[in-house]
Amino acid sequence: MRTIDWVDGAVEIIDQTALPHDLRTVRITDVDDLVDAIRRLAVRGAPALGAAGALGVALAREQGRREGWSDDDVAKAIDRVRRARPTAVNLAWGVERASARLPDGDAAVEAEARAVLDEDAAANRAMGERGARLLETLCGTPDGGLRLHTHCNTGALACVEWGTALGVARTLHGRGLLGRVYAAETRPLLQGSRLTAWELDRMGADYRVVVDGAGPSLITRGFAHAVVVGADRIAANGDVANKVGTYPLALAADRAGVPFVVVAPESTIDAATPDGSRIEIEDRGDDEVVGWNGERVAPAGARAVNPAFDVTPADLVTAIVTERRVVRPAGGERPA
Amino acid sequence: MRTIDWVDGAVEIIDQTALPHDLRTVRITDVDDLVDAIRRLAVRGAPALGAAGALGVALAREQGRREGWSDDDVAKAIDRVRRARPTAVNLAWGVERASARLPDGDAAVEAEARAVLDEDAAANRAMGERGARLLETLCGTPDGGLRLHTHCNTGALACVEWGTALGVARTLHGRGLLGRVYAAETRPLLQGSRLTAWELDRMGADYRVVVDGAGPSLITRGFAHAVVVGADRIAANGDVANKVGTYPLALAADRAGVPFVVVAPESTIDAATPDGSRIEIEDRGDDEVVGWNGERVAPAGARAVNPAFDVTPADLVTAIVTERRVVRPAGGERPA
Repeated sequence: MRTIDWVDGAVEIIDQTALPHDLRTVRITDVDDLVDAIRRLAVRGAPALGAAGALGVALAREQGRREGWSDDDVAKAIDRVRRARPTAVNLAWGVERASARLPDGDAAVEAEARAVLDEDAAANRAMGERGARLLETLCGTPDGGLRLHTHCNTGALACVEWGTALGVARTLHGRGLLGRVYAAETRPLLQGSRLTAWELDRMGADYRVVVDGAGPSLITRGFAHAVVVGADRIAANGDVANKVGTYPLALAADRAGVPFVVVAPESTIDAATPDGSRIEIEDRGDDEVVGWNGERVAPAGARAVNPAFDVTPADLVTAIVTERRVVRPAGGERPA
Repeated sequence: MRTIDWVDGAVEIIDQTALPHDLRTVRITDVDDLVDAIRRLAVRGAPALGAAGALGVALAREQGRREGWSDDDVAKAIDRVRRARPTAVNLAWGVERASARLPDGDAAVEAEARAVLDEDAAANRAMGERGARLLETLCGTPDGGLRLHTHCNTGALACVEWGTALGVARTLHGRGLLGRVYAAETRPLLQGSRLTAWELDRMGADYRVVVDGAGPSLITRGFAHAVVVGADRIAANGDVANKVGTYPLALAADRAGVPFVVVAPESTIDAATPDGSRIEIEDRGDDEVVGWNGERVAPAGARAVNPAFDVTPADLVTAIVTERRVVRPAGGERPA
């Protein structure tokens, strides 16, 4: 099962807002419903958004054909998909990939969109292979299997299938080499306890959820053999922007002598960004922090600072694993 | 108003589980209700637990007198108080203080328990003074005031009144020297967003709530001039056990060159514990992590690891401030 797919002329997605309690597939036949699904994070994760962009173009053509839209109507619909989350670069990238085939007809657009999905799936498998091999090299094959600490959700739900950092855990699990995954809950939106735990549960892996503040001391106490995380952007020097809460894990791993491994596709490496200081950190406002499911936890009037990401400096990054290579920033290698 | 007090033969506490929404005082006349209040964190914080321990002895005597207990019954009740929570040394310390007066009769026990409370209040003021002076020495008096990052709740609610680390912020605020406090929400029980934010709000201080994972990167980005936290137990070598999530702040402060200051009474220093590796870390089980206000956030069957504390090694501790002195573990000084 894919997180997002093209089925009989429609986009089908797993609605991530219903997880972990309900596994609900939503069939989307209207471009504006796809835009809404992206906005409300029913589909999320950089690679999955790339797929949504490409499929959005195919959907605009399909809906246009069905409802007799003009070429201009189709172009406007595609633009609404592109702008659904203006900061997500993968979304626009997916739209461009499929849009380039518009002159060649519906079948060509659909084929290109499918290719985006298949390439993402293949890249994930390659990262899983390479990451698993790297961890065996770094950590050996300890009795009881490898114990990994991870953050946020980097599994099938963030991609088309398989996953990046969590994809490495999936590959290890398939080989009987995975001991346990410690999944940081990832406040404020709990992608760890809601989504990563759900994926680990379905794959039948041994796992434990931990609060974000507990990760560093558990690493120091030897709970995990390695920390494995994804990335939202990797600067040319190897500084890594990822979900807020990643940096403390890197600090603890460094002090404990535990490998800190980033798993992300080549497209995450941004050669135009020289280092992490140039990465703009989005602040998502108060509500996610001071409230919970509509209930206020802090006093009325409490304000928050809510950075969505943090930057882990290159010297703390043991390795970056992509679908093509392993780069070792802590050893002085630059990804770009 | 005191967080915990002895009123007409009973222990009265502010029920911290009802904050920040309700300020509710609970009157406790039964030792086992006190043990329950300690376990469910209605009263919490190392110094307040010291007071609870001392008052627990007075309460056991009072209840024993009322209900005709044997000396053995009283001793057993006192022992239940002593063992209500394992990590905070203050609880046992408070029990010992008051128990030493058992041979001298009820009035002597009660007087000793009251003395524990009064001494704690006085010690907090002294820590506030000394801590404020130390921070001025370490950080100067920056334009806009000192910005502090803190964790958990170390205010009046964690003590009898005033506070330890947050007491330093209170002292600075009273002098117009406090810029802003960044209060880590402190998962899983949110003592930061629920209790510290409530205290800061009441004192009229400028503050922001942040998720625990965001602290280290905000420190790196220069948001705070110093990190100021409390302690649950300090080993002879200066290793500090405190609420889980403290250690990552110390790691980040060290790397950023930001002072990491621990404020705690002398009673927190445990000369019998040579270093942090000997400190028992309480694991509080799954429910606090995988659920939220009775609602499950992780998948059914998800397990957690939930250590209540972590240990910050002495070399990361710029200073320990007590009611009597400043010790500098990172500079090689030992508190005991």
